[in-house]
Amino acid sequence: MSRQEIAAATGLSFATVANLVAELLEAGVLLESGHEESKGGRPRAQLAVNAQRGALVGIDVAETSVRVELFDLALTALRSVSLPLPQAGVSPEEVIATIAAGVEALMDDTNSPPPILGAGVCVPGLVEREGGVSVFSPYWSWRDVPVRSLLAERLPMPLYLDNPLKASAVAEMWFGAGREVENLLVVTLRSGVGVGIAVDGALYRGATNSAGEWGHTCLVPGGRECRCGRLGCVEAYVSTRGIVETVRELDERSPLLDPEEATVVSSVARAWTEGNPVAVETVTRTARYLGLASADLLNLFNPQTLVLGGWVADCLGEPLLRQTREVIAERALPATLQALTLQLSNVPGQPVTLGAATFALEGFLNDRATFGAVAAGRRAARAAKGRTS
Amino acid sequence: MSRQEIAAATGLSFATVANLVAELLEAGVLLESGHEESKGGRPRAQLAVNAQRGALVGIDVAETSVRVELFDLALTALRSVSLPLPQAGVSPEEVIATIAAGVEALMDDTNSPPPILGAGVCVPGLVEREGGVSVFSPYWSWRDVPVRSLLAERLPMPLYLDNPLKASAVAEMWFGAGREVENLLVVTLRSGVGVGIAVDGALYRGATNSAGEWGHTCLVPGGRECRCGRLGCVEAYVSTRGIVETVRELDERSPLLDPEEATVVSSVARAWTEGNPVAVETVTRTARYLGLASADLLNLFNPQTLVLGGWVADCLGEPLLRQTREVIAERALPATLQALTLQLSNVPGQPVTLGAATFALEGFLNDRATFGAVAAGRRAARAAKGRTS
Repeated sequence: MSRQEIAAATGLSFATVANLVAELLEAGVLLESGHEESKGGRPRAQLAVNAQRGALVGIDVAETSVRVELFDLALTALRSVSLPLPQAGVSPEEVIATIAAGVEALMDDTNSPPPILGAGVCVPGLVEREGGVSVFSPYWSWRDVPVRSLLAERLPMPLYLDNPLKASAVAEMWFGAGREVENLLVVTLRSGVGVGIAVDGALYRGATNSAGEWGHTCLVPGGRECRCGRLGCVEAYVSTRGIVETVRELDERSPLLDPEEATVVSSVARAWTEGNPVAVETVTRTARYLGLASADLLNLFNPQTLVLGGWVADCLGEPLLRQTREVIAERALPATLQALTLQLSNVPGQPVTLGAATFALEGFLNDRATFGAVAAGRRAARAAKGRTS
Repeated sequence: MSRQEIAAATGLSFATVANLVAELLEAGVLLESGHEESKGGRPRAQLAVNAQRGALVGIDVAETSVRVELFDLALTALRSVSLPLPQAGVSPEEVIATIAAGVEALMDDTNSPPPILGAGVCVPGLVEREGGVSVFSPYWSWRDVPVRSLLAERLPMPLYLDNPLKASAVAEMWFGAGREVENLLVVTLRSGVGVGIAVDGALYRGATNSAGEWGHTCLVPGGRECRCGRLGCVEAYVSTRGIVETVRELDERSPLLDPEEATVVSSVARAWTEGNPVAVETVTRTARYLGLASADLLNLFNPQTLVLGGWVADCLGEPLLRQTREVIAERALPATLQALTLQLSNVPGQPVTLGAATFALEGFLNDRATFGAVAAGRRAARAAKGRTS
């Protein structure tokens, strides 16, 4: 991309872009990758991200495992490792040790590891970003665990703590459906359920970074017991555990059942293709629950796009999407449906680790000691974008 | 306010502020109202809005009446008129005629009417602002009524069509709780129920201007029939009609009942102060419904402030607020409650007409023929605000 194209895309002046690019070239973040002939003028320099400048780490601490993924500076995934967590009663120290072991395993895998510019760490539940604290994590009943300080003793790199809903939304904004639209909801269906919200092209976090806590919206008053202690929450129906429960309600001896909840979901997906009646009905009921809950969500936000992501959506895919779309079409308001696209996530790779690495990249570029003008330029670009809307 | 204070408040440079102020002075929108001694420097000119420069009209087309209010340029309410609408089968032409009659009545009321710079018109339901079309209004089953063109034949002034939820939110942002916070929800409880949404200091409209359609969220599956045809919607419980229904369920011969729904709500409020058991129980149940629905809404948006407004909240006031707060405290997530303020609207006067007049003022100031630099400056100010967050 040339400086001219960047100026056109961001709404910044050519002079501003040239200044910012000079700084990024000097810091080795960009490089000149060639020249393009321009009609009647000087050839324009083509710029590219210097992918080898350093690496970024994305870490997804899920309820039952930790996934650590290494990215180059262009956010291309290089390699990853997944390590299991004990199923019950896991301590913060065990999680920290598992994360550190994952990062070390990735580093050991190469002779000359690139410098790590930062790591994004996503933990479920409520996260206080500035302090790097996991304020509350319902699965482990954690409260106020200072994840960043604990990790900092093991990992010598800048660390950015956040929540998987936010990471999935950012991955979708940078690399998925959010490239095309400004107002976007990204529903994540896995052990936990929630929604990432992009408003006017920016991630919406709310007052305490807990916006998008949709999983504990009441869907069925007096319904299934949710792990939060309430009855009938959305999460109790459309999470991995919700799917297991639906299979069990249909046939408590179903061979689809398995001690590993995630396995049940993939088994349902496989059995659906073979016409297994329990699998077919499980998908239909899940789509019904998801569609009813989503219709209300969509009426409130009136987004351009709703993305379904997470393990449940990845496994159940098109059949779930198609049936959910039917329920939404029947239940949402006409105004909501008018401009709505409903789709599966098309982020390449794993959205949570990719989004976590994106947070690390943002952190790196916001480091004013290194990039004073660039940090100011990014804010100006955001402002310029607002100016044209 | 001096130019220096404006620069400090907006983050714009003094030179930019001076340019914009010069243009606004020339157009007669601002005037110099005096001088303030500044320590050791030249006295600073104090600026004020030239309230007499022209008038703005705010129009609230509710289900059963039309309220027209006249404001000066400083958005101080001057006088208003309310005209009833026929209760059933009202035609677009009747509404248009009623609006025009209201505006004419206000004009006739004075010997030298000020020039009208614009009128904001709020109609319930889905509104397409650019075209000035009421796309769908559930109460009258209107579809695609070109309100602005119809009105333009009667009213020789710039007209801005919008929706009462949006107007209430803007009134709150300019004159109420939104002066202090960036993330705000404004719940409106009247014949219709919905929420106005402010995100990072800006009104959030969604893809088709229908964000905030909260009234038809399912609260009680299989519950009361809603006028939208669905069962158990929030609106069926906490609108004026919902209150009437609750009174009727408690005592179908209650003297609080009246053919006029709005009267029932004010009677309940009065009877509550006298300890009338039906009134007491009606408020308790309404707070329960409202609290349950609001808890889920708050978990999703995680706002700093939730404002309760509209006729129902105006009438039932503190008792409703207090009991709703209790239900929310019991049901919302701790992260949601941590930073939340719940309050009644403290906008002076009528938020919908005030917000409508604000839309007219925004339209006037965005008129590039008159205010090229000012329109650009307002966008820059918005951008500068983003820059500091």
